[in-house]
Amino acid sequence: MTRKAAIIGGGVIGGGWTARFVLNGWDVAVFDPAPGAEKNVAIMLANARLAVPALSDVPMPPEGRVTFAATMAEALEGAEYVQESVSERLELKHRVYAQMQQANPDVLIGSSTSGFKAGDLQKGAVNPASIIVAHPFTPVYLLPLCEISASPANPPEVIARTVAIARDIGMFPLVMRKEIDAFIGSRFLEAVWREALWMLKDGVATTEEIDDAIRMSFGLRWAQMGLFENYRIAGGEAGMRHFMAQFGPALKWPWTKLTDVPEFNDALVDLVAGQSDAQSGHIPIRDLERQRDQNLVGILRALKDRNVGAGRVLREHDARRAVAFHDAEPSGAPLVMAQMQVLPGWIDYNGHMTESRYYFANSETVDAFLRLIGAGMDYVAAGQSYYSAETHIRHLGEAKLGDRLTCTLQVISADEKRFRSFVQIMKGDECLATVEQLCLHVDMGTGKTCAASPEVWGNLSRIAGAHAVLPVPEGAGRAVGQKRD
Amino acid sequence: MTRKAAIIGGGVIGGGWTARFVLNGWDVAVFDPAPGAEKNVAIMLANARLAVPALSDVPMPPEGRVTFAATMAEALEGAEYVQESVSERLELKHRVYAQMQQANPDVLIGSSTSGFKAGDLQKGAVNPASIIVAHPFTPVYLLPLCEISASPANPPEVIARTVAIARDIGMFPLVMRKEIDAFIGSRFLEAVWREALWMLKDGVATTEEIDDAIRMSFGLRWAQMGLFENYRIAGGEAGMRHFMAQFGPALKWPWTKLTDVPEFNDALVDLVAGQSDAQSGHIPIRDLERQRDQNLVGILRALKDRNVGAGRVLREHDARRAVAFHDAEPSGAPLVMAQMQVLPGWIDYNGHMTESRYYFANSETVDAFLRLIGAGMDYVAAGQSYYSAETHIRHLGEAKLGDRLTCTLQVISADEKRFRSFVQIMKGDECLATVEQLCLHVDMGTGKTCAASPEVWGNLSRIAGAHAVLPVPEGAGRAVGQKRD
Repeated sequence: MTRKAAIIGGGVIGGGWTARFVLNGWDVAVFDPAPGAEKNVAIMLANARLAVPALSDVPMPPEGRVTFAATMAEALEGAEYVQESVSERLELKHRVYAQMQQANPDVLIGSSTSGFKAGDLQKGAVNPASIIVAHPFTPVYLLPLCEISASPANPPEVIARTVAIARDIGMFPLVMRKEIDAFIGSRFLEAVWREALWMLKDGVATTEEIDDAIRMSFGLRWAQMGLFENYRIAGGEAGMRHFMAQFGPALKWPWTKLTDVPEFNDALVDLVAGQSDAQSGHIPIRDLERQRDQNLVGILRALKDRNVGAGRVLREHDARRAVAFHDAEPSGAPLVMAQMQVLPGWIDYNGHMTESRYYFANSETVDAFLRLIGAGMDYVAAGQSYYSAETHIRHLGEAKLGDRLTCTLQVISADEKRFRSFVQIMKGDECLATVEQLCLHVDMGTGKTCAASPEVWGNLSRIAGAHAVLPVPEGAGRAVGQKRD
Repeated sequence: MTRKAAIIGGGVIGGGWTARFVLNGWDVAVFDPAPGAEKNVAIMLANARLAVPALSDVPMPPEGRVTFAATMAEALEGAEYVQESVSERLELKHRVYAQMQQANPDVLIGSSTSGFKAGDLQKGAVNPASIIVAHPFTPVYLLPLCEISASPANPPEVIARTVAIARDIGMFPLVMRKEIDAFIGSRFLEAVWREALWMLKDGVATTEEIDDAIRMSFGLRWAQMGLFENYRIAGGEAGMRHFMAQFGPALKWPWTKLTDVPEFNDALVDLVAGQSDAQSGHIPIRDLERQRDQNLVGILRALKDRNVGAGRVLREHDARRAVAFHDAEPSGAPLVMAQMQVLPGWIDYNGHMTESRYYFANSETVDAFLRLIGAGMDYVAAGQSYYSAETHIRHLGEAKLGDRLTCTLQVISADEKRFRSFVQIMKGDECLATVEQLCLHVDMGTGKTCAASPEVWGNLSRIAGAHAVLPVPEGAGRAVGQKRD
């Protein structure tokens, strides 16, 4: 049965949660009486649909349903989890929790608060035990971190359930060891924000210069390894101890102005907002959002290639969802082996999917097929593999940014040492490209072809037998430039 | 003539500078009497050779020469620029500058200091005007930021020369508006470092949890847009002003402990170093360095695909270096159209370059060829382009991580509406793959083939004529699985 979450508050955070739940197959009921909430959630969901599937190497689950509830009670109906994302006003949050627990005193409530402790949130509640902090980062549908912070009133099973739900929707749940205001992330953000405001106020740098300084230097380091791992490396062979000995004394130097808080007045707001307008006021926020998301997709994909940090979270999320996909029984039809979405980085200067990505789509398809017949990673690790020897690609149509592609594979011929595959890359009913490929089974020790293992050959021959009833596809067996028959 | 830089100090920073200069074609003389400096520079250079060429889409310039000088004067001989990277002790820096200016009073000296102002560095110098701050970030050969900070004693031409040199070696020079300690980057790093030490000391989080919190959340945001651009987006349609109104009040809350400095004693060092050892003490620093570099290459490539932030810097650096490359006169030999290095992300689970990357290499080669004949971006923007219709790839050998590939293109046949190309992907003298491709000249408005412009056809036919003397390559005109003749 489809799981259901209630999202209370439909702003940037609530909308982001909605998109994350829905694209991970949960039904969502949103409650937010503010005008514009429904439009905002729709925008977030549209953004997320452009970006999130581009991170997945397994088919996305069927999208959940979004409904907008007229009352809190309606939103909570049948929901096993509530994510509260209302404004950061404690008395408002208390009021909202009271309404929720009147409707359902036992429902698990995660709060998006970036600052309040769970203990503060729970004050005066009918059931404090089921209120916990689950703090995400914008854009919620792309960034994996979910800081989970409990008070002594929360029993272990409440923490465990919150962790499990965060993981189910592809997040990285980080359970705080102690209750502190603002947890980890927001404390760093506040420290940097204060220092940045001082720099602006003192005329040391503009908003654009500060952004450039960050994204041309430590921003790149932090995206992949965080703080300490990078410093450990900077310490060289001697490691962290050496780094601290070098850096330690500077701790006492009065570099930063963090002992004071700049006065928050209209002049400061005008200064910052004015510079920010000059920097990017000419770009609509919706465009900036999509640019940011496309950049994040690119970075996340690079990390996924390397199985590092947020990329490892994506891989683990795929692995959990992949189980059901490769159980197909062979039949007299080409196998649907891969689905993908055309990413921003796949587009060439003609605005079309660049040609090498068709070959990439074929590789993904054949790799999935190899896993299906038992010639995946473990098989390779044991010393045998299939190598592609020769490939013929025909380009018949064009894919554009965001198109969803389905790749089918037909086995044209097979014996114990080789098989010939014919992949069709489809956009809906339209075939965009065909890829014919000869793969040889190789002993990686000797580098020579050899017979596949009985298990692999058994699986392969079973499918080849089922595909023998299919006609040889139009376009198979051609040379480049050969006239059509 | 090859330009020459002197690098004073051969640690992580000096070694990083050496690698950046040398891979950008400068000769470098290193002076560092410390034992181990020569080995350290060699390691940095080896790391850089694995990573930096993977970011370039034009051939790298011939590598400069590295020499180790016995004296400061010898290092400075013939150098137009000196990068000082000795320890952060002001009296040591003053002594080093005195020695330099005795050898050559006019040489331009950039300091890698992360904290001292140019005015402090210049005190007591024979020629203060030629000493300036040029502050990089580790790894210097990959991260583009170079903070340039001058004092009133530096004339504008000294600043301009420093900027020009930083740009020549592919950096992003950011000239500070005012002299402040620690410039921009290190001030943020200090703020975050202090807060992180408090969290460790208070037992709120471990080094690993802090690293995860950063790299799963705002680290990903900052790598591409920095601080303010992201907050502008978070403010929604109402922009920065709205964001500040929301976030402003929190400024006064006592979240961070930045008003104090934790006492820097052995217990703190033991705590941090111990946790860091537990986190990654099992991985040798050299491995961590390469992992970090590979991750950075992946992120930088993703940003380069999107022409954003550090990726834009890489594109501009390519553009400056590309000019000379496409001036080849057609001759009776295949054209060398592309060079590339096998990146970490190109490797499949067999440990070989993944097959779609051969097609990618072909695309890069054909794209360079199209630019050569005048059918590049501007031509496409005007409404015509070449589309690839059909491709045949033969895999004859294997490429591994770090291999350098050279791609040649031979025109097999051409008329006004199409050409057939034959690309060989070479590792040294070994042909790893051949790619035969038919490209059609298309009017992008109608989607139909049409004749190329007189200029493009003139260039293409000139090269096709020169290539007519070449034999048809072995392997051209084949279908998949066809027996060899």
